[in-house]
Amino acid sequence: MDAYKKAGVDINAGYKLVDDIKNLSKNSALGSFGGLFPLELGTYQNPVLVSGTDGVGTKLLIAIKANLHKTIGIDLVAMCVNDVLAQGAKPLFFLDYLGVGHLDNDKAKDIVSGVVEGVSQAQAKLVGGETAEMPDMYTDGHYDLAGFAVGIADKAKLLSAKNLREGDVLLGLASNGLHSNGFSLVRDILFKQHDYSLDETLPGCELDLKHELLRPTKIYVKSVLPLIDKGKITAIAHITGGGLPENVARILPDNLSAEFNYGSWKVPAIMENLQRIGQLSFDDLKHTFNLGLGMVVAVHPDVAEDVKAELEKSGETVYRVGKLVSGHQEVIIRKDQQ
Amino acid sequence: MDAYKKAGVDINAGYKLVDDIKNLSKNSALGSFGGLFPLELGTYQNPVLVSGTDGVGTKLLIAIKANLHKTIGIDLVAMCVNDVLAQGAKPLFFLDYLGVGHLDNDKAKDIVSGVVEGVSQAQAKLVGGETAEMPDMYTDGHYDLAGFAVGIADKAKLLSAKNLREGDVLLGLASNGLHSNGFSLVRDILFKQHDYSLDETLPGCELDLKHELLRPTKIYVKSVLPLIDKGKITAIAHITGGGLPENVARILPDNLSAEFNYGSWKVPAIMENLQRIGQLSFDDLKHTFNLGLGMVVAVHPDVAEDVKAELEKSGETVYRVGKLVSGHQEVIIRKDQQ
Repeated sequence: MDAYKKAGVDINAGYKLVDDIKNLSKNSALGSFGGLFPLELGTYQNPVLVSGTDGVGTKLLIAIKANLHKTIGIDLVAMCVNDVLAQGAKPLFFLDYLGVGHLDNDKAKDIVSGVVEGVSQAQAKLVGGETAEMPDMYTDGHYDLAGFAVGIADKAKLLSAKNLREGDVLLGLASNGLHSNGFSLVRDILFKQHDYSLDETLPGCELDLKHELLRPTKIYVKSVLPLIDKGKITAIAHITGGGLPENVARILPDNLSAEFNYGSWKVPAIMENLQRIGQLSFDDLKHTFNLGLGMVVAVHPDVAEDVKAELEKSGETVYRVGKLVSGHQEVIIRKDQQ
Repeated sequence: MDAYKKAGVDINAGYKLVDDIKNLSKNSALGSFGGLFPLELGTYQNPVLVSGTDGVGTKLLIAIKANLHKTIGIDLVAMCVNDVLAQGAKPLFFLDYLGVGHLDNDKAKDIVSGVVEGVSQAQAKLVGGETAEMPDMYTDGHYDLAGFAVGIADKAKLLSAKNLREGDVLLGLASNGLHSNGFSLVRDILFKQHDYSLDETLPGCELDLKHELLRPTKIYVKSVLPLIDKGKITAIAHITGGGLPENVARILPDNLSAEFNYGSWKVPAIMENLQRIGQLSFDDLKHTFNLGLGMVVAVHPDVAEDVKAELEKSGETVYRVGKLVSGHQEVIIRKDQQ
């Protein structure tokens, strides 16, 4: 049993990690051929499974550079479960895939502890995962992460563009900074065009760059799901790559456009810094970063204040950021209020 | 919208790929926030979702070296759905994650066409996926693949070690060569310790090395699932990393061991070559490669011949490879019949 280890794959280190993950996740069934999730269908008439897969992009390279691996797993879960939530579904369970060049158990434990934290925030269950040791695949210290979330919704309650009306209010839920998108541009601006140190703190930012850039992506399940259940939310856009323009466009029906009033919410200082340092056009900015809104929720006007208040009670920072107008699936960010 | 592209991420190339994948998979709903799968629960009393995630290890590096990317997606699906099947569940749907340094649409299309083929062989549905372009993450031409499968079973029909008895027969289903495990050792032996060309054909092998090594992993769903449905199969081990010893041990109860008669099935020529060239001990060989058996099925003796005949009718090559004996979860490979 030595040849495989000499070739760079340590199966026993893998087994040790599985034990560690079992303890972290408190799911002793991990490690069998497939993860089990009993379905409780009591209240579902026509259950639909809603699933999503995602990674965290090159935010990983910041975690690697900063040697801080405990929160990147939260980002991973967030990217997946917020997508599931955006369809109106309740996340049920999650699996993670970790690809490494050489298995470093302490680092892997840090990474998976973030996954466990994220799954807890999403009120879901970690049912499985794979840690793949792949010598020669990743350069030293690099790893990749992929996540998979499955949720459930009643077919009739899936959120749909069809239910949107002219005049519907757009509520923006504050992001926790950059979340997990645009990091190739971030790295290009800060570390290739310029030579910033991760220990620097940019003007207006509370944290030094390594902690600012690694702020974990917000998971909106706890605050938003109860309002979906009550039928108070009509549509949701999870703001990821492509920013407001592309992600909000995905929820619009043919006959409506979305109009945002720039200035009606707070744009994080890190993005203003990146725009300034990288001399980015506003077009670049809005198509790459979330501009401070991690999720945009469309609601009928008569429940807008109610929904806003409930979300705030759950701890969200919520802005009334715009409305739906007659149009053709355009996303307009009006800057005249600045 | 140019800054992000200059930083190495081409969002438009990504959109083009999504369109290509929609066409390949004939699933026009791909590209929304989450993949939808309506559950039809007519016949399930207590439905349990069974999920699995996996990658294909450094078999990827062979595909990259050979510049042949059309079948690696089959391996990906196989690694996941065979795990789901091994629990007694019917695979329902699949999602894939493809991480690349720079998005090459033609290569990505080849990769995903393999995924689509694998999903079809597994009688499942591709409901989503993610292609992540990550500059600086992967060295030139490298990519990683992760897959995620969800299946369903009735709780009472999940395969379980509890139903195994002394004297149960072990049927081995022929693998299609190496499948997706042990490739770091394969690469070490053939391309580091020695300098074989991918165009060479090793003694006893039908194909040259690139095609021999890239034979896609068998997907056993079509042949095995009908027998699970009929209640004729008691337990299944999907033979992956760790070989027969570790994967068969996972299905054994405390009081039983598995005894294999080496020589009762055909070991693929590629493995004999690897043992010879790499001077591997039998211990190394059996803990790293599948030895020619991609799946081991435990059945009660009175249905063994019946199950074997049905599997053969479905196109499988099936061997009676051993039996369960009283013991303590040991996997014994008896070589005295050689």
